[in-house]
Amino acid sequence: MAVGDFPLPIMHPVPGVTLGTAFADVKGKGSTADAKQDLLLVTFPASATVAGVFTQNAFCAAPVTLCKQNLAENTQAWLVNSGNANACTGAQGLDDARATCARVAECLGIAAEVVMPFSTGVIGEPLPVARISKAIPAAIANLDEYNWPAAARAIMTTDTRPKGASRLVEYQGQQFTITGISKGAGMIKPNMATMLAYIATDLSIAQPVLQSILAHAADCSFNRITIDGDTSTNDSCMLVATGVNPLPAINDASGELFELVASHINEVLVELAKAIIADGEGATKLVSVLVEEGTDSAECLQVAYSICHSPLVKTALFASDPNWGRIVAAIGYAGVDGLDADLVRVYLDDVLIVENGGRAVTYTEQAGQAVMDKDQLQIRVQLGRGQAQEIVWTTDLSHGYVTINAEYRT
Amino acid sequence: MAVGDFPLPIMHPVPGVTLGTAFADVKGKGSTADAKQDLLLVTFPASATVAGVFTQNAFCAAPVTLCKQNLAENTQAWLVNSGNANACTGAQGLDDARATCARVAECLGIAAEVVMPFSTGVIGEPLPVARISKAIPAAIANLDEYNWPAAARAIMTTDTRPKGASRLVEYQGQQFTITGISKGAGMIKPNMATMLAYIATDLSIAQPVLQSILAHAADCSFNRITIDGDTSTNDSCMLVATGVNPLPAINDASGELFELVASHINEVLVELAKAIIADGEGATKLVSVLVEEGTDSAECLQVAYSICHSPLVKTALFASDPNWGRIVAAIGYAGVDGLDADLVRVYLDDVLIVENGGRAVTYTEQAGQAVMDKDQLQIRVQLGRGQAQEIVWTTDLSHGYVTINAEYRT
Repeated sequence: MAVGDFPLPIMHPVPGVTLGTAFADVKGKGSTADAKQDLLLVTFPASATVAGVFTQNAFCAAPVTLCKQNLAENTQAWLVNSGNANACTGAQGLDDARATCARVAECLGIAAEVVMPFSTGVIGEPLPVARISKAIPAAIANLDEYNWPAAARAIMTTDTRPKGASRLVEYQGQQFTITGISKGAGMIKPNMATMLAYIATDLSIAQPVLQSILAHAADCSFNRITIDGDTSTNDSCMLVATGVNPLPAINDASGELFELVASHINEVLVELAKAIIADGEGATKLVSVLVEEGTDSAECLQVAYSICHSPLVKTALFASDPNWGRIVAAIGYAGVDGLDADLVRVYLDDVLIVENGGRAVTYTEQAGQAVMDKDQLQIRVQLGRGQAQEIVWTTDLSHGYVTINAEYRT
Repeated sequence: MAVGDFPLPIMHPVPGVTLGTAFADVKGKGSTADAKQDLLLVTFPASATVAGVFTQNAFCAAPVTLCKQNLAENTQAWLVNSGNANACTGAQGLDDARATCARVAECLGIAAEVVMPFSTGVIGEPLPVARISKAIPAAIANLDEYNWPAAARAIMTTDTRPKGASRLVEYQGQQFTITGISKGAGMIKPNMATMLAYIATDLSIAQPVLQSILAHAADCSFNRITIDGDTSTNDSCMLVATGVNPLPAINDASGELFELVASHINEVLVELAKAIIADGEGATKLVSVLVEEGTDSAECLQVAYSICHSPLVKTALFASDPNWGRIVAAIGYAGVDGLDADLVRVYLDDVLIVENGGRAVTYTEQAGQAVMDKDQLQIRVQLGRGQAQEIVWTTDLSHGYVTINAEYRT
């Protein structure tokens, strides 16, 4: 089950980027007619710069450890497998990840250090190095600029649909491209459903600038669908700038072109993040929680996450029940110092439901129900304390979630 | 659904305490043959001392506000209704709670300030004062020392069974009694399922001493099945000492009799708290999470709650799936500074499942499965950092939970 209609848009090729997929039988279930491609190889020229943000989990997976180590190298390839996370696999996990990179390097005639590995799937199982290595030549043979849709599919695990965002941007009579894909489906509190995202542009951007663009964009998108630190062992978000576009290189975090590309990358990441939320495991509703009038950003997020993580709010959303008492309780226990309950106002979309410490006089159950019946809606909270605001996206909690996570070993 | 066999034990009367129940039709559904009693009145002599701990929720309910105000008075009666929380009801809620207390006071010939009101049920609906007031004489007519079992039933909401603990204790040839009841069923993270508990002893205990005994006992019991601050609008835990026992009065927090009664009250509260957990909404498993070898108590609790609140761990428990990767990930994102994943060991009961950053060499899926198949089990984590330890109790996350909370407006 997934919310609404989030079709994969037209995925514009990014000059300099080629993508190839293959079936490596990562799960070892053998080849079947409907077997999903589970291996993705992405390549770019030596001129490319690469930025990355990674999981903060203390048990970070072997591939994440290697990616962090090699981020300073001039990366030329990303190798991604679904079906196995290569996490909690100790020293063997590192050796295994290195072995698959070495195989790519050997086939492409590049150094192993410029190949970055990524894995998503079951934790604690050894990576099937032999099967992955065997499939690498097929992925290479498949390399093509137009393979973004197939790439979006190859990285899926419990995802029910591929996720992508893409745009062509005009600047001074020239065009540049930003295209990205993402995966991730566990969504109550996405603490273990690995979030992966790969975004590319053909502009030339100095690595420190690229890293700052990515860090900020991830903070306004992927970090607004999860709690800081509540990350899986494998979360990674990568951004490459191939530098093959004739537009001038961006060497500083300022100027018109910088602002333009940064804002478009922001939008692409928000789109990819919302696509993840909308495909939340068992999700039937996509809910934005907007908290306004806070003293600072931190307390707005505190209240927003308190609402987003309340299983009682989430089950009420599933039932389309305008049970505003549960929302109010979640605000009340969010831990905001000195919160004056009498100043708090709560809306469902534009319907005022709570003010003066109780149900709004103008509120009717029918008006609340009409909003709750929608599959995309907003919970809006005004704290009556200041000017700060934050937005976080979440989903409901359904039988589908329990079924997927009880019956499927991620 | 509820875990295991937690029958109501023999509930010893507490000299000085009488209890009466009645059907007040709080929910306004009319009288039916199987209608549950929804009103409880508890009385004690003017000599009694009373202690209480209350919700920290910023939206605390009207009755909680009154109880806090009147805790200094020499309480002589508790009035409890189920079916309506009288929370988020603004100024009207306070007037309504006062009106029901005034009615009790009038009938019993005592002051309204010595009657404490408690409510649990739906949030945001006005308290049906007229119906409650009308039922108060019936509750008074029913007052009896032996009514603890009926009292335990009268305060239930989504609870599937009454919860009680009781003991007769010998001291210097004399006996004294401790008897208590509790309610509360929402258990993923009990942020809104009101927890109520009423405990009584016939000893004579000075109010400040009684308050310190209760605060400590609540911290080791009810606060170990919930997160500090993640409380409902109505949580209350009350302890009365009627003072009718001939044993010497306890005026200081020291001495043999103090130690004896404090430790027994501790045990009674732990029993009442575990009964709540075992009756968690849709719970099929009762799980204790023991975190050892922490630097301090705070980081042990951090890790324990991280595990207890992970929906992925909880759905794996429901599926009896020894998916230790989810446990490890929850430890990893708990936010313990400088945690060395290689030093962490994880056990399911006595089965070592994780060490050296990966699956233990001795671990077999069969051994893990055997523990997971039990309906009461322990997840034990050794952090390898120090001497502190903490224990927290939780349940699994099942279809039953979603059904109860999606279909029932608490």
